[in-house]
This record gives sequence, structure tokens and C-alpha cells, in this order.
Amino acid sequence: MSFTDMSFANLPVEPLSASAFAPFGDVIETQGNGFHYINAKMVERYHDLAQVDVDKMGGQVGISLCVGSPYVFPMRVTEMERHPLSSQCFIPLSNKPFLVIVAVPGDTVEPRQLRGFLTNGAQGVNYAAGVWHHALLTVGEISQFVVVDRIGEGPNCDVVVFAEDQQLTVDAKLS
Amino acid sequence: MSFTDMSFANLPVEPLSASAFAPFGDVIETQGNGFHYINAKMVERYHDLAQVDVDKMGGQVGISLCVGSPYVFPMRVTEMERHPLSSQCFIPLSNKPFLVIVAVPGDTVEPRQLRGFLTNGAQGVNYAAGVWHHALLTVGEISQFVVVDRIGEGPNCDVVVFAEDQQLTVDAKLS
Repeated sequence: MSFTDMSFANLPVEPLSASAFAPFGDVIETQGNGFHYINAKMVERYHDLAQVDVDKMGGQVGISLCVGSPYVFPMRVTEMERHPLSSQCFIPLSNKPFLVIVAVPGDTVEPRQLRGFLTNGAQGVNYAAGVWHHALLTVGEISQFVVVDRIGEGPNCDVVVFAEDQQLTVDAKLS
Repeated sequence: MSFTDMSFANLPVEPLSASAFAPFGDVIETQGNGFHYINAKMVERYHDLAQVDVDKMGGQVGISLCVGSPYVFPMRVTEMERHPLSSQCFIPLSNKPFLVIVAVPGDTVEPRQLRGFLTNGAQGVNYAAGVWHHALLTVGEISQFVVVDRIGEGPNCDVVVFAEDQQLTVDAKLS
């Protein structure tokens, strides 16, 4: 699995969907979800779309904003991280697709376990606690995201760095 | 304070700013806030911008999406609501201004206590628990918002309806 030709992306990228993403967490989107009307039918509420899990070891929920610079694609996937204590949610404020790379929870993670997903611009994601994920992968131009995650002490970020000859290459488009 | 001429808006509308909004909650925005870099400086994180307060009476935090239909302005302010148990946060996903009408906590609310704010499109708001606020006031076109609020049982929505001859009129532009 060693590739020096960066033009060959060997991590497939799928369109993000709630069903495909279920092992990793929640897709936050209106599409495919029911709503109820509030405010005299002026507002459709798509209710409670993510399992927010931040309480362990005295954690509190926090709302932050992140401004991501775009990566240059194709790119090598050099490392993955996880937050063992908590979920972490990213919702784009710019209606732009971003790239999501994940793997199911486990003591460690290997490149062959990775799954790549491209959002459709209207989708956010909520990584479940312990899910391996790449750092925020902004595509195309500087983009802003709302982040809902855990505020608190504790060892809550593990990183696995892949050996260079094991790294996969990914492009920011559907395979 | 009775006005039948709807073209005369008698609730002033101010630009939303963190300082002006401080008695009512938080403004969620990058402008004016510091950040720290994460992810090898690919991402600026504006950290923990809102006081999320949802735990009373067994409440949990939830992430929802709301799709708001635009109001016709000028409009009468007929009623206000509050959530005594919890904060409530709205962040626009469409980069469009929306109108915010608030009043400080108290057993009830009167039209003379109202303050009107227009967001700049890049701002969200987090109403503190007990703050009187109007229902979501979308401006211009259908707009989507991420909502972070309390999921749980309990009496958590009070509404005050204003007598018709006391109602103020507001326009969706700065006064």
C-alpha cells in the first residue's frame, strides 16, 4: 500500500449518508429527517439530530467556531485522532462540502480501516466518542464551522501517526 | 403606544454586538474574539463562545436544525417567550441577517422593555435562561439555523401575549 504517485488516490470517497455513517456517529441534515412545526408554522424543527456525549469526567458542552483553511488535494492521510471521552460535532456555515475520514473505535487504527466521505454542503457530522477521525478537512476555500464538543480537563485526544509507506492518498471528490 | 400605521416602526433596531447583547446572552461570532490554532495551524478555533445551560431538571443538550420562513415586515410584536430552565442558541447556516427581539428576565415582560437587534449574517445568538425573546425571526428568504438547546421534560416555555393597543411595530432593518 505504498504510493508515491500522489495523483493516484487510493482511499475511496463516498457520498456522506446517514446510513453509511451510522457506525461513526450522526449526520446532521434536514434531508431524510422528519420535522415538526413550531412558531405558528413559521419554522420547521428537525429535532435532536445528534447524540451529544460530553459529560464524562466532568465535561461540559461548548459551542465554538472553527475557520478552516483548505487542504491541497490529493493529500496523504498521515494521522488520525480520537476523543475517547466525548463526541464532537462539525456543522458548516458556508454550505460547502468538506471531507470526512473516519474509522470505527478500537485501541488503534490502521490505514486499511479508513472510510472517506464527502459531505454535500448541507450536512454536518457528529463523531461518536472514540471514533477515529481526521482533523477537519476543509475543501476549496476558507470555510467556517460551528463545533459542539466537550470543554473540560482530561486526556481526550489520542493520535495515531501512520508509517510513511502505509499512508493512503485521498482526493476531495467522489470516487 | 398604540399604532395602527404599520409603516411606522416604533421598536428601534440596533446592530447586534456582544456588548449590547450581554444582558441577554452571548453573540456567537469570530469578530472580536480571539482564537488559537489547532490541526497544524490549518484551523482557527474560537473557543467556547456560549454559556450552554441546559442541565436543570434532568435536561440534556441537543442539536437540531430549524428552517425558518421569512416574516413580512414591518410586523407587530404580539408576544414573547422564555425558557426558564435553559439557554437556547441559534446560529445561521445561510450567512443571512436575522432579527432578534429580547428583554431581560423577569416575571413578565412589557413592550417598553423590548430591544431589537439585527445580526450581520455571521452572528449567532445564545439566549440565557429566562431571557424573554421573540420566536425566530427569519428575514428575506427561507433560512436554516443550527439550534443548540435543552432536550427534556419540564415546563420550559412561558409566553406573554401583548394587548393589541400595546403592541410595538418593528422593521427588519437598522433604525
